[in-house]
Amino acid sequence: MTCSGKGDLAVAVDLGGTKMSVALVRSDGRIVSQRRCLTNSDEGAKAVLGRLLLIISDMLSRVKSTKSELAGIAVACAGVIDMNKGIVTESPNLPGFSRIRLRDIIAHEFGVTCYVINDASAAALGEYEFGAGARGRVENLIYLTVSTGIGGGMIIRGQLYLGSDGSAGEIGHMIIKADGPLCKCGRRGCLESLAAGWAVARDAVECLKKGEESSILQLAGGKIEHVTAAVVSAAAKQGDILAQKVIRSAAGYLGIGLANIINVFNPQLVVIGGGLAKMGNLLLEPACKVAEALAFSLPGKSVRVVRARFIANAGILGAAAYVFSQLRGGVKG
Amino acid sequence: MTCSGKGDLAVAVDLGGTKMSVALVRSDGRIVSQRRCLTNSDEGAKAVLGRLLLIISDMLSRVKSTKSELAGIAVACAGVIDMNKGIVTESPNLPGFSRIRLRDIIAHEFGVTCYVINDASAAALGEYEFGAGARGRVENLIYLTVSTGIGGGMIIRGQLYLGSDGSAGEIGHMIIKADGPLCKCGRRGCLESLAAGWAVARDAVECLKKGEESSILQLAGGKIEHVTAAVVSAAAKQGDILAQKVIRSAAGYLGIGLANIINVFNPQLVVIGGGLAKMGNLLLEPACKVAEALAFSLPGKSVRVVRARFIANAGILGAAAYVFSQLRGGVKG
Repeated sequence: MTCSGKGDLAVAVDLGGTKMSVALVRSDGRIVSQRRCLTNSDEGAKAVLGRLLLIISDMLSRVKSTKSELAGIAVACAGVIDMNKGIVTESPNLPGFSRIRLRDIIAHEFGVTCYVINDASAAALGEYEFGAGARGRVENLIYLTVSTGIGGGMIIRGQLYLGSDGSAGEIGHMIIKADGPLCKCGRRGCLESLAAGWAVARDAVECLKKGEESSILQLAGGKIEHVTAAVVSAAAKQGDILAQKVIRSAAGYLGIGLANIINVFNPQLVVIGGGLAKMGNLLLEPACKVAEALAFSLPGKSVRVVRARFIANAGILGAAAYVFSQLRGGVKG
Repeated sequence: MTCSGKGDLAVAVDLGGTKMSVALVRSDGRIVSQRRCLTNSDEGAKAVLGRLLLIISDMLSRVKSTKSELAGIAVACAGVIDMNKGIVTESPNLPGFSRIRLRDIIAHEFGVTCYVINDASAAALGEYEFGAGARGRVENLIYLTVSTGIGGGMIIRGQLYLGSDGSAGEIGHMIIKADGPLCKCGRRGCLESLAAGWAVARDAVECLKKGEESSILQLAGGKIEHVTAAVVSAAAKQGDILAQKVIRSAAGYLGIGLANIINVFNPQLVVIGGGLAKMGNLLLEPACKVAEALAFSLPGKSVRVVRARFIANAGILGAAAYVFSQLRGGVKG
């Protein structure tokens, strides 16, 4: 039914709750062609899927011979992925997708091998193959994307580790503060609920509602519903005390998350991606200081914590890396 | 200098802060001969080492030909192990050992390959090879020992995962309650500080000091310093309300730790060893219920949480399993 070519090109899809992106990527990580559009997930999973199939079809039309040139298609998706079935089982940002056999539909439509993979796991592989991990000889790498949410991916002994069903890596939902704030996943005190973009925005809004003085509201155009992590970050850079306090708190929790990763995995490299990685001095530096203080000395000394090379294209390059890794002998749980 | 035989016997050492045990173990996990004695760690590392060398020597005298029969020696030790150097870098229960090149001294003394390995990592391998993991085809197994302290070990893709330096697996020091109680490691809110034996005893003592009614003190012979997790467990089994409350709290935190493991690793099997695993209905069952509620549905459904097969001999069998796994091609970080 489907053919898995040995080609040098992969169709890589990054399917997010807000945007989707489809690209044609070479095995060295070069993006040959790319298209982006809004996901409009409120239109329902079937509509989104229809649009996705159209863009993939358009992308495939740029490939002279899918048989000789194409290695496969991979879709990187936020959420808990059942890789045995090729479906998205839980994803707050892609409602309705759990009922769609995403992998099989795409594979059948184009007669090409298709994979569905968690976006942060894919990004871990992308950084390992093409990015921050590619510079040195690294065997064990943990990737953390700190964005609106927090996701994770793990390279163990030079191979992506996906666990028994393909759902491993939910580091963002590691509980680090029992009885902490409510997370979007329904648990309490997940790393995400304390250090992700939405948590930073929530904390800022709570303080503003209490009447604390700050320039945040002004930077958000006077509308409290427009307060985002980016706005808080901008205010902090301008010296706003409240914004700095909120980000310092998030950094402290991120540091605890990093220390847990270092003490449990003893990795050579931790790569931090996602939009909030750009906050640099404000977020990552204090987080690393906390992690350093909380890590055991041996794993703390040997680990390097670095910023990801890819932010916007992390999912795309990760999905492509996954296709090529499968060609080279596959990724085992 | 040292010879690594291809034999069917391993000398396995379990070096704890209170007791040490040395055994001769066959590659099928059978214990041929075993000696136990007190560690008396207050006498200092050199005295302990001297006693250990004597017992190993005695054990080796039972082997006809170390060259043809012996596969190697392994020492399982609590604490953070630098496997590259073969030393115990941090171990609250074995003071002074960080300055001793444990592996090299033993290897040199007997002319036999020696390994030093964390006891919980070893136990993970022991359960994987000979115990709870050996019954089914399991690729990914997480082992947790809940005893006075809490340790962890990880089997990833059928191999022990030790991380970059050999210190991976410190699941007991995963922080699950930021700003929680002080742990013996100096951090706050580690899983160990909330669910280990010493934490259960501490919580009980705190409540008793507040004057809460309970039969715990009576069971401890009227001496508050004799209150241990075993005493609290005995009281709980007799229906003591305070004891049950204290254990329920520990079970809740253990459940959070288990959920974190399940969501991050998506393993097929979680094996719980250590003295507190015997509490069964009191501790493990409620902990598993909490874990079930907090795990994502996909990894939560596919994982089995079981009791370890080995408690007293977990370190011994683990150390032996490590020696034989090295013969079969080694364990890579």
